[in-house]
Amino acid sequence: VNQPAVFENICFILVQTLHSGNIGSAARALKNMGLHRLKLVNPCDPANRECQMMAVGANDVVENAPRYSVLEEAVADEHVVIGTTSNRGRRQKTRIYTPREVAPLICQYAESQRVCLVFGPERRGLSEQQLALCRYLVTIPASPLFPTLNLAQAVMLMAYEIFSLSETERTPPPELATEEERSRMFRHMERVLLEIGFLSRSNPGHMMRAIRRILGQADLTERDVRILRGIMSQMEWYVRSGKNLDRKDILKP
Amino acid sequence: VNQPAVFENICFILVQTLHSGNIGSAARALKNMGLHRLKLVNPCDPANRECQMMAVGANDVVENAPRYSVLEEAVADEHVVIGTTSNRGRRQKTRIYTPREVAPLICQYAESQRVCLVFGPERRGLSEQQLALCRYLVTIPASPLFPTLNLAQAVMLMAYEIFSLSETERTPPPELATEEERSRMFRHMERVLLEIGFLSRSNPGHMMRAIRRILGQADLTERDVRILRGIMSQMEWYVRSGKNLDRKDILKP
Repeated sequence: VNQPAVFENICFILVQTLHSGNIGSAARALKNMGLHRLKLVNPCDPANRECQMMAVGANDVVENAPRYSVLEEAVADEHVVIGTTSNRGRRQKTRIYTPREVAPLICQYAESQRVCLVFGPERRGLSEQQLALCRYLVTIPASPLFPTLNLAQAVMLMAYEIFSLSETERTPPPELATEEERSRMFRHMERVLLEIGFLSRSNPGHMMRAIRRILGQADLTERDVRILRGIMSQMEWYVRSGKNLDRKDILKP
Repeated sequence: VNQPAVFENICFILVQTLHSGNIGSAARALKNMGLHRLKLVNPCDPANRECQMMAVGANDVVENAPRYSVLEEAVADEHVVIGTTSNRGRRQKTRIYTPREVAPLICQYAESQRVCLVFGPERRGLSEQQLALCRYLVTIPASPLFPTLNLAQAVMLMAYEIFSLSETERTPPPELATEEERSRMFRHMERVLLEIGFLSRSNPGHMMRAIRRILGQADLTERDVRILRGIMSQMEWYVRSGKNLDRKDILKP
Protein backbone atom coordinates (compact mmCIF):
# COMPACT_ATOMS: atom_id res chain seq x y z
CA VAL A 1 0.00 0.00 0.00
CA ASN A 2 1.33 3.40 -0.98
CA GLN A 3 0.36 5.15 2.24
CA PRO A 4 0.59 8.82 1.26
CA ALA A 5 -1.41 8.34 -1.95
CA VAL A 6 -4.06 6.22 -0.23
CA PHE A 7 -4.31 8.59 2.73
CA GLU A 8 -4.73 11.51 0.33
CA ASN A 9 -8.02 9.88 -0.68
CA ILE A 10 -9.36 9.42 2.86
CA CYS A 11 -11.31 12.26 4.41
CA PHE A 12 -12.94 12.65 7.84
CA ILE A 13 -16.08 14.80 8.03
CA LEU A 14 -17.33 16.26 11.31
CA VAL A 15 -20.96 17.33 11.22
CA GLN A 16 -22.28 20.14 13.49
CA THR A 17 -19.64 19.64 16.13
CA LEU A 18 -20.68 21.50 19.30
CA HIS A 19 -17.39 21.70 21.22
CA SER A 20 -14.42 23.24 19.45
CA GLY A 21 -12.03 21.28 21.70
CA ASN A 22 -13.28 18.13 19.99
CA ILE A 23 -12.37 19.52 16.56
CA GLY A 24 -8.84 20.22 17.80
CA SER A 25 -8.53 16.76 19.39
CA ALA A 26 -9.86 15.09 16.26
CA ALA A 27 -7.35 16.97 14.10
CA ARG A 28 -4.51 15.87 16.38
CA ALA A 29 -5.71 12.26 16.28
CA LEU A 30 -5.84 12.31 12.47
CA LYS A 31 -2.34 13.73 12.18
CA ASN A 32 -1.05 11.18 14.72
CA MET A 33 -2.28 8.50 12.37
CA GLY A 34 -0.77 10.01 9.23
CA LEU A 35 -4.10 11.37 7.98
CA HIS A 36 -4.80 15.04 7.39
CA ARG A 37 -7.93 15.56 5.31
CA LEU A 38 -10.76 17.02 7.37
CA LYS A 39 -14.03 18.65 6.32
CA LEU A 40 -16.28 20.58 8.69
CA VAL A 41 -20.05 20.83 8.26
CA ASN A 42 -21.70 23.76 10.05
CA PRO A 43 -19.28 23.58 13.00
CA CYS A 44 -18.94 25.63 16.15
CA ASP A 45 -16.09 28.13 15.95
CA PRO A 46 -13.02 26.03 15.12
CA ALA A 47 -10.64 28.99 15.26
CA ASN A 48 -10.95 29.55 19.00
CA ARG A 49 -8.46 28.96 21.79
CA GLU A 50 -9.92 25.64 23.00
CA CYS A 51 -9.62 24.12 19.54
CA GLN A 52 -6.04 25.32 19.10
CA MET A 53 -5.07 24.08 22.55
CA MET A 54 -6.34 20.56 21.83
CA ALA A 55 -4.91 20.44 18.31
CA VAL A 56 -1.37 21.08 19.65
CA GLY A 57 0.75 20.56 16.51
CA ALA A 58 -2.18 19.77 14.21
CA ASN A 59 -3.58 23.26 13.74
CA ASP A 60 -2.76 23.01 10.05
CA VAL A 61 -5.31 20.19 9.72
CA VAL A 62 -8.05 22.47 11.12
CA GLU A 63 -6.92 25.49 9.12
CA ASN A 64 -6.92 23.52 5.88
CA ALA A 65 -10.37 22.02 6.53
CA PRO A 66 -13.01 23.34 4.12
CA ARG A 67 -16.38 24.36 5.63
CA TYR A 68 -19.81 23.39 4.35
CA SER A 69 -23.28 24.28 5.48
CA VAL A 70 -24.85 20.85 4.91
CA LEU A 71 -23.50 17.28 4.70
CA GLU A 72 -24.78 16.82 1.15
CA GLU A 73 -22.36 19.51 -0.05
CA ALA A 74 -19.45 18.05 1.84
CA VAL A 75 -19.87 14.57 0.37
CA ALA A 76 -20.66 15.73 -3.16
CA ASP A 77 -17.24 14.83 -4.58
CA GLU A 78 -16.72 11.66 -2.51
CA HIS A 79 -16.95 8.24 -4.13
CA VAL A 80 -17.74 6.30 -0.97
CA VAL A 81 -19.47 7.68 2.12
CA ILE A 82 -19.20 5.79 5.41
CA GLY A 83 -21.33 6.85 8.37
CA THR A 84 -20.69 6.31 12.07
CA THR A 85 -23.62 5.53 14.32
CA SER A 86 -24.12 4.44 17.90
CA ASN A 87 -26.73 2.00 16.62
CA ARG A 88 -28.73 2.34 19.84
CA GLY A 89 -32.40 1.93 19.15
CA ARG A 90 -31.85 1.63 15.42
CA ARG A 91 -33.72 -1.02 13.53
CA GLN A 92 -31.29 -3.47 12.04
CA LYS A 93 -31.93 -2.72 8.38
CA THR A 94 -28.42 -2.83 7.01
CA ARG A 95 -25.26 -4.50 8.08
CA ILE A 96 -23.36 -2.54 10.72
CA TYR A 97 -19.58 -2.89 10.41
CA THR A 98 -16.95 -2.66 13.12
CA PRO A 99 -14.00 -0.28 12.59
CA ARG A 100 -11.75 -3.30 12.05
CA GLU A 101 -14.05 -4.69 9.38
CA VAL A 102 -14.48 -1.44 7.50
CA ALA A 103 -10.83 -0.26 7.60
CA PRO A 104 -9.66 -2.69 4.87
CA LEU A 105 -12.58 -1.63 2.68
CA ILE A 106 -11.66 2.03 3.16
CA CYS A 107 -8.03 1.38 2.22
CA GLN A 108 -9.04 -0.68 -0.81
CA TYR A 109 -11.36 2.00 -2.16
CA ALA A 110 -8.81 4.70 -1.38
CA GLU A 111 -6.27 3.11 -3.69
CA SER A 112 -8.11 4.73 -6.56
CA GLN A 113 -11.13 6.65 -5.21
CA ARG A 114 -12.15 9.21 -2.60
CA VAL A 115 -13.61 7.79 0.62
CA CYS A 116 -15.02 9.73 3.55
CA LEU A 117 -15.97 8.86 7.12
CA VAL A 118 -18.76 10.95 8.64
CA PHE A 119 -19.20 11.72 12.37
CA GLY A 120 -22.37 13.36 13.72
CA PRO A 121 -22.73 15.93 16.50
CA GLU A 122 -21.89 15.01 20.09
CA ARG A 123 -24.63 12.96 21.80
CA ARG A 124 -27.18 13.15 18.97
CA GLY A 125 -25.14 11.57 16.20
CA LEU A 126 -26.08 11.57 12.51
CA SER A 127 -29.77 11.86 11.59
CA GLU A 128 -31.63 9.16 9.69
CA GLN A 129 -31.51 11.37 6.62
CA GLN A 130 -27.75 11.81 6.91
CA LEU A 131 -27.22 8.08 7.47
CA ALA A 132 -29.20 7.45 4.31
CA LEU A 133 -26.34 9.06 2.34
CA CYS A 134 -23.96 6.36 3.52
CA ARG A 135 -22.76 3.31 1.61
CA TYR A 136 -21.56 1.64 4.83
CA LEU A 137 -22.39 2.13 8.50
CA VAL A 138 -19.89 1.62 11.33
CA THR A 139 -20.42 1.28 15.06
CA ILE A 140 -17.51 1.28 17.48
CA PRO A 141 -17.86 -1.64 19.92
CA ALA A 142 -18.35 -0.35 23.47
CA SER A 143 -19.67 -1.36 26.87
CA PRO A 144 -23.48 -1.50 26.81
CA LEU A 145 -23.42 0.15 30.24
CA PHE A 146 -21.63 3.27 29.00
CA PRO A 147 -21.43 3.27 25.23
CA THR A 148 -21.15 6.98 24.40
CA LEU A 149 -17.65 7.76 23.21
CA ASN A 150 -16.15 11.19 23.04
CA LEU A 151 -16.19 12.38 19.41
CA ALA A 152 -12.42 12.77 19.11
CA GLN A 153 -11.94 9.31 20.66
CA ALA A 154 -14.21 7.84 18.00
CA VAL A 155 -12.22 9.66 15.31
CA MET A 156 -8.99 8.29 16.80
CA LEU A 157 -10.22 4.68 16.82
CA MET A 158 -11.23 4.85 13.17
CA ALA A 159 -7.98 6.59 12.17
CA TYR A 160 -5.99 4.03 14.16
CA GLU A 161 -7.64 1.11 12.40
CA ILE A 162 -6.87 2.66 9.02
CA PHE A 163 -3.29 3.50 9.99
CA SER A 164 -2.69 0.02 11.46
CA LEU A 165 -3.37 -1.48 8.05
CA SER A 166 -0.75 0.60 6.34
CA GLU A 167 1.81 -0.01 9.06
CA THR A 168 4.11 -2.48 7.38
CA GLU A 169 7.39 -1.20 8.78
CA ARG A 170 7.97 -2.72 12.19
CA THR A 171 10.69 -1.83 14.64
CA PRO A 172 13.50 -4.33 14.12
CA PRO A 173 13.90 -6.91 16.91
CA PRO A 174 17.07 -6.77 19.01
CA GLU A 175 20.10 -8.71 17.73
CA LEU A 176 20.26 -11.85 19.80
CA ALA A 177 23.08 -14.04 21.04
CA THR A 178 23.49 -17.39 19.30
CA GLU A 179 22.57 -20.65 20.98
CA GLU A 180 26.29 -21.44 21.19
CA GLU A 181 26.91 -18.25 23.17
CA ARG A 182 23.97 -19.05 25.44
CA SER A 183 25.18 -22.63 25.96
CA ARG A 184 28.65 -21.43 26.92
CA MET A 185 27.04 -19.04 29.38
CA PHE A 186 24.99 -21.80 31.01
CA ARG A 187 28.05 -24.07 31.29
CA HIS A 188 29.92 -21.20 32.92
CA MET A 189 27.00 -20.68 35.33
CA GLU A 190 26.92 -24.35 36.18
CA ARG A 191 30.65 -24.37 37.05
CA VAL A 192 30.34 -21.35 39.33
CA LEU A 193 27.10 -22.43 40.98
CA LEU A 194 28.68 -25.83 41.69
CA GLU A 195 31.72 -24.13 43.14
CA ILE A 196 29.75 -21.99 45.57
CA GLY A 197 27.63 -24.98 46.52
CA PHE A 198 24.33 -23.75 45.08
CA LEU A 199 24.04 -26.78 42.82
CA SER A 200 24.26 -30.25 44.29
CA ARG A 201 27.09 -32.31 42.80
CA SER A 202 24.80 -35.34 42.58
CA ASN A 203 22.11 -33.65 40.51
CA PRO A 204 23.08 -30.24 39.12
CA GLY A 205 20.86 -30.69 36.05
CA HIS A 206 17.56 -30.25 37.86
CA MET A 207 18.25 -26.72 39.05
CA MET A 208 20.12 -25.78 35.88
CA ARG A 209 17.03 -26.60 33.86
CA ALA A 210 15.01 -24.21 36.03
CA ILE A 211 17.61 -21.46 35.49
CA ARG A 212 17.65 -22.15 31.76
CA ARG A 213 13.88 -21.92 31.71
CA ILE A 214 13.88 -18.56 33.55
CA LEU A 215 16.54 -16.97 31.34
CA GLY A 216 15.19 -18.73 28.27
CA GLN A 217 12.22 -16.38 28.37
CA ALA A 218 14.43 -13.37 27.72
CA ASP A 219 15.59 -12.24 24.28
CA LEU A 220 19.24 -12.39 25.33
CA THR A 221 21.53 -10.17 23.29
CA GLU A 222 25.31 -10.65 23.15
CA ARG A 223 25.63 -7.82 25.66
CA ASP A 224 23.16 -9.53 28.02
CA VAL A 225 25.22 -12.72 27.86
CA ARG A 226 28.35 -10.71 28.68
CA ILE A 227 26.61 -9.14 31.70
CA LEU A 228 25.43 -12.48 33.08
CA ARG A 229 28.82 -14.07 32.49
CA GLY A 230 30.36 -11.01 34.13
CA ILE A 231 28.46 -11.80 37.33
CA MET A 232 29.75 -15.37 37.23
CA SER A 233 33.34 -14.30 36.52
CA GLN A 234 33.22 -11.86 39.41
CA MET A 235 31.92 -14.57 41.72
CA GLU A 236 34.69 -16.90 40.52
CA TRP A 237 37.29 -14.23 41.08
CA TYR A 238 35.93 -13.47 44.51
CA VAL A 239 35.93 -17.12 45.46
CA ARG A 240 39.42 -17.80 44.19
CA SER A 241 41.13 -14.63 45.28
CA GLY A 242 40.18 -15.15 48.88
CA LYS A 243 38.74 -11.65 48.90
CA ASN A 244 36.75 -12.42 52.00
CA LEU A 245 40.03 -13.53 53.61
CA ASP A 246 41.12 -9.89 53.69
CA ARG A 247 38.06 -8.92 55.64
CA LYS A 248 38.59 -11.80 58.06
CA ASP A 249 42.22 -10.74 58.41
CA ILE A 250 41.15 -7.23 59.27
CA LEU A 251 38.86 -8.58 61.95
CA LYS A 252 41.76 -10.45 63.53
CA PRO A 253 43.54 -8.57 66.24
CA VAL B 1 -14.68 -16.09 29.16
CA ASN B 2 -16.11 -14.26 32.10
CA GLN B 3 -15.38 -10.71 30.95
CA PRO B 4 -16.14 -8.87 34.18
CA ALA B 5 -13.83 -11.18 36.16
CA VAL B 6 -10.98 -10.68 33.68
CA PHE B 7 -11.52 -6.91 33.56
CA GLU B 8 -11.47 -6.81 37.36
CA ASN B 9 -7.81 -7.85 37.12
CA ILE B 10 -6.82 -5.15 34.63
CA CYS B 11 -5.72 -1.80 35.98
CA PHE B 12 -4.61 1.38 34.23
CA ILE B 13 -2.04 3.51 36.05
CA LEU B 14 -1.53 7.18 35.18
CA VAL B 15 1.77 8.59 36.42
CA GLN B 16 2.17 12.29 37.21
CA THR B 17 -0.58 13.40 34.86
CA LEU B 18 -0.30 17.17 34.37
CA HIS B 19 -3.75 18.02 32.96
CA SER B 20 -6.79 16.98 34.95
CA GLY B 21 -8.91 16.94 31.78
CA ASN B 22 -6.82 14.01 30.60
CA ILE B 23 -7.65 12.06 33.76
CA GLY B 24 -11.36 12.63 33.14
CA SER B 25 -11.08 11.66 29.46
CA ALA B 26 -9.07 8.56 30.32
CA ALA B 27 -11.70 7.50 32.88
CA ARG B 28 -14.46 7.93 30.30
CA ALA B 29 -12.48 5.91 27.74
CA LEU B 30 -11.96 3.08 30.24
CA LYS B 31 -15.64 2.95 31.12
CA ASN B 32 -16.60 3.03 27.41
CA MET B 33 -14.55 -0.13 27.04
CA GLY B 34 -16.00 -1.92 30.06
CA LEU B 35 -12.94 -1.29 32.25
CA HIS B 36 -12.99 0.66 35.49
CA ARG B 37 -9.84 0.11 37.54
CA LEU B 38 -7.63 3.20 37.64
CA LYS B 39 -4.68 4.11 39.88
CA LEU B 40 -3.19 7.59 40.05
CA VAL B 41 0.45 8.25 40.91
CA ASN B 42 1.20 11.76 42.12
CA PRO B 43 -1.46 13.34 39.85
CA CYS B 44 -2.55 16.91 39.32
CA ASP B 45 -5.86 17.70 41.04
CA PRO B 46 -8.30 15.06 39.71
CA ALA B 47 -11.26 16.49 41.62
CA ASN B 48 -11.49 19.73 39.66
CA ARG B 49 -14.06 20.92 37.14
CA GLU B 50 -12.05 20.14 34.02
CA CYS B 51 -11.65 16.51 35.05
CA GLN B 52 -15.34 16.11 35.87
CA MET B 53 -16.36 17.75 32.61
CA MET B 54 -14.27 15.35 30.55
CA ALA B 55 -15.26 12.27 32.57
CA VAL B 56 -18.97 12.89 31.82
CA GLY B 57 -20.58 9.71 33.23
CA ALA B 58 -17.32 8.13 34.41
CA ASN B 59 -16.66 10.23 37.51
CA ASP B 60 -17.00 7.09 39.61
CA VAL B 61 -13.89 5.70 37.95
CA VAL B 62 -11.87 8.76 39.04
CA GLU B 63 -13.41 8.83 42.51
CA ASN B 64 -12.61 5.17 43.12
CA ALA B 65 -9.01 5.50 41.92
CA PRO B 66 -6.47 5.08 44.72
CA ARG B 67 -3.58 7.59 44.86
CA TYR B 68 0.11 6.80 45.33
CA SER B 69 3.18 8.95 45.66
CA VAL B 70 5.51 6.78 43.56
CA LEU B 71 5.00 4.17 40.86
CA GLU B 72 6.77 1.48 42.89
CA GLU B 73 3.96 1.64 45.49
CA ALA B 74 1.24 1.53 42.85
CA VAL B 75 2.61 -1.62 41.20
CA ALA B 76 3.61 -3.44 44.40
CA ASP B 77 0.64 -5.83 44.31
CA GLU B 78 0.55 -6.26 40.52
CA HIS B 79 1.73 -9.51 38.95
CA VAL B 80 2.44 -8.12 35.49
CA VAL B 81 3.48 -4.55 34.77
CA ILE B 82 3.22 -3.23 31.20
CA GLY B 83 4.73 0.12 30.31
CA THR B 84 3.83 2.43 27.46
CA THR B 85 6.62 4.31 25.73
CA SER B 86 6.97 6.48 22.66
CA ASN B 87 10.13 4.55 21.79
CA ARG B 88 11.63 7.63 20.18
CA GLY B 89 15.36 7.68 20.61
CA ARG B 90 15.33 4.53 22.76
CA ARG B 91 18.04 2.04 22.08
CA GLN B 92 16.54 -1.19 20.84
CA LYS B 93 17.36 -3.50 23.72
CA THR B 94 14.07 -5.26 24.27
CA ARG B 95 11.12 -6.11 22.12
CA ILE B 96 8.53 -3.37 21.83
CA TYR B 97 4.97 -4.66 21.42
CA THR B 98 2.08 -3.05 19.59
CA PRO B 99 -1.24 -2.67 21.44
CA ARG B 100 -2.68 -5.43 19.26
CA GLU B 101 0.14 -7.79 20.14
CA VAL B 102 0.04 -7.13 23.87
CA ALA B 103 -3.76 -7.15 24.34
CA PRO B 104 -4.08 -10.96 24.11
CA LEU B 105 -1.26 -11.34 26.64
CA ILE B 106 -3.00 -8.91 29.00
CA CYS B 107 -6.27 -10.83 28.79
CA GLN B 108 -4.53 -14.17 29.28
CA TYR B 109 -2.72 -13.04 32.41
CA ALA B 110 -5.85 -11.34 33.72
CA GLU B 111 -7.71 -14.64 33.76
CA SER B 112 -6.00 -15.38 37.07
CA GLN B 113 -3.62 -12.54 37.93
CA ARG B 114 -3.41 -8.77 38.27
CA VAL B 115 -2.08 -6.89 35.25
CA CYS B 116 -1.47 -3.17 34.99
CA LEU B 117 -0.77 -0.79 32.11
CA VAL B 118 1.30 2.24 33.00
CA PHE B 119 1.16 5.64 31.24
CA GLY B 120 3.73 8.34 31.94
CA PRO B 121 3.23 12.11 32.15
CA GLU B 122 2.21 14.08 29.05
CA ARG B 123 5.11 14.74 26.67
CA ARG B 124 7.85 13.29 28.91
CA GLY B 125 6.50 9.76 29.29
CA LEU B 126 7.85 7.18 31.74
CA SER B 127 11.47 7.47 32.90
CA GLU B 128 14.05 4.76 32.22
CA GLN B 129 13.82 3.76 35.87
CA GLN B 130 10.04 3.42 35.64
CA LEU B 131 10.28 1.45 32.39
CA ALA B 132 12.70 -0.89 34.13
CA LEU B 133 9.80 -2.07 36.32
CA CYS B 134 7.93 -3.34 33.27
CA ARG B 135 7.64 -6.90 32.01
CA TYR B 136 6.46 -5.70 28.59
CA LEU B 137 6.78 -2.43 26.71
CA VAL B 138 4.16 -1.16 24.28
CA THR B 139 4.35 1.60 21.70
CA ILE B 140 1.26 2.77 19.85
CA PRO B 141 2.01 2.92 16.13
CA ALA B 142 1.82 6.50 14.89
CA SER B 143 2.96 8.74 12.09
CA PRO B 144 6.69 9.48 12.41
CA LEU B 145 5.90 13.08 11.43
CA PHE B 146 3.60 13.66 14.43
CA PRO B 147 3.79 10.72 16.81
CA THR B 148 2.79 12.31 20.13
CA LEU B 149 -0.65 11.09 21.10
CA ASN B 150 -2.86 12.74 23.66
CA LEU B 151 -2.69 10.71 26.89
CA ALA B 152 -6.41 9.87 26.99
CA GLN B 153 -6.28 8.83 23.32
CA ALA B 154 -3.45 6.43 24.15
CA VAL B 155 -5.50 5.04 27.06
CA MET B 156 -8.49 4.61 24.73
CA LEU B 157 -6.52 2.69 22.10
CA MET B 158 -5.17 0.26 24.68
CA ALA B 159 -8.59 -0.17 26.31
CA TYR B 160 -10.20 -0.68 22.89
CA GLU B 161 -7.73 -3.41 21.96
CA ILE B 162 -8.43 -5.18 25.25
CA PHE B 163 -12.19 -4.80 24.89
CA SER B 164 -12.10 -6.02 21.27
CA LEU B 165 -10.58 -9.27 22.46
CA SER B 166 -12.92 -10.03 25.29
CA GLU B 167 -14.48 -12.99 23.53
CA THR B 168 -11.43 -14.95 22.36
CA GLU B 169 -10.09 -18.11 23.94
CA ARG B 170 -7.07 -18.15 26.17
CA THR B 171 -4.72 -20.60 27.83
CA PRO B 172 -4.00 -20.06 31.52
CA PRO B 173 -0.60 -18.49 32.29
CA PRO B 174 1.68 -19.54 35.17
CA GLU B 175 1.10 -18.00 38.60
CA LEU B 176 3.46 -15.10 38.89
CA ALA B 177 5.29 -13.34 41.68
CA THR B 178 4.05 -9.85 42.52
CA GLU B 179 6.08 -6.72 41.78
CA GLU B 180 6.83 -6.42 45.49
CA GLU B 181 8.40 -9.88 45.54
CA ARG B 182 10.39 -9.05 42.42
CA SER B 183 11.54 -5.73 43.92
CA ARG B 184 12.75 -7.47 47.06
CA MET B 185 14.66 -9.93 44.88
CA PHE B 186 16.36 -7.14 42.92
CA ARG B 187 17.33 -5.33 46.12
CA HIS B 188 18.80 -8.60 47.40
CA MET B 189 20.73 -9.03 44.13
CA GLU B 190 22.03 -5.49 44.33
CA ARG B 191 23.36 -6.07 47.87
CA VAL B 192 25.16 -9.27 46.89
CA LEU B 193 26.52 -7.97 43.59
CA LEU B 194 27.87 -4.92 45.42
CA GLU B 195 29.45 -7.18 48.01
CA ILE B 196 31.28 -9.31 45.47
CA GLY B 197 32.36 -6.18 43.61
CA PHE B 198 30.37 -6.80 40.44
CA LEU B 199 28.53 -3.51 40.82
CA SER B 200 30.47 -0.30 41.22
CA ARG B 201 29.64 1.54 44.43
CA SER B 202 29.54 4.84 42.56
CA ASN B 203 26.89 3.76 40.01
CA PRO B 204 25.19 0.45 40.81
CA GLY B 205 21.97 1.57 39.08
CA HIS B 206 23.28 1.32 35.55
CA MET B 207 24.08 -2.37 35.66
CA MET B 208 21.06 -3.18 37.86
CA ARG B 209 18.77 -1.75 35.19
CA ALA B 210 20.37 -4.08 32.65
CA ILE B 211 19.81 -7.05 34.96
CA ARG B 212 16.25 -5.96 35.61
CA ARG B 213 15.69 -5.67 31.90
CA ILE B 214 17.04 -9.17 31.24
CA LEU B 215 15.04 -10.84 34.02
CA GLY B 216 12.10 -8.53 33.35
CA GLN B 217 11.47 -10.48 30.17
CA ALA B 218 10.69 -13.65 32.10
CA ASP B 219 7.36 -14.57 33.67
CA LEU B 220 8.87 -15.02 37.11
CA THR B 221 6.85 -17.29 39.39
CA GLU B 222 7.26 -17.27 43.15
CA ARG B 223 9.42 -20.38 42.80
CA ASP B 224 11.62 -18.66 40.21
CA VAL B 225 12.13 -15.75 42.59
CA ARG B 226 13.09 -18.25 45.32
CA ILE B 227 15.61 -19.90 42.98
CA LEU B 228 17.23 -16.61 41.99
CA ARG B 229 17.31 -15.42 45.60
CA GLY B 230 18.72 -18.83 46.52
CA ILE B 231 21.69 -18.20 44.25
CA MET B 232 22.20 -14.81 45.89
CA SER B 233 21.89 -16.24 49.41
CA GLN B 234 24.40 -18.93 48.57
CA MET B 235 26.84 -16.31 47.25
CA GLU B 236 26.33 -14.26 50.40
CA TRP B 237 26.88 -17.28 52.63
CA TYR B 238 29.95 -18.30 50.67
CA VAL B 239 31.41 -14.82 50.84
CA ARG B 240 30.74 -14.40 54.55
CA SER B 241 31.61 -17.85 55.75
CA GLY B 242 35.14 -17.63 54.44
CA LYS B 243 34.58 -20.96 52.70
CA ASN B 244 37.49 -20.27 50.35
CA LEU B 245 39.66 -19.66 53.44
CA ASP B 246 39.75 -23.42 53.96
CA ARG B 247 41.21 -23.98 50.56
CA LYS B 248 43.84 -21.30 51.12
CA ASP B 249 44.68 -22.86 54.46
CA ILE B 250 45.22 -26.17 52.78
CA LEU B 251 47.61 -24.55 50.35
CA LYS B 252 49.66 -23.12 53.20
CA PRO B 253 52.50 -25.27 54.36
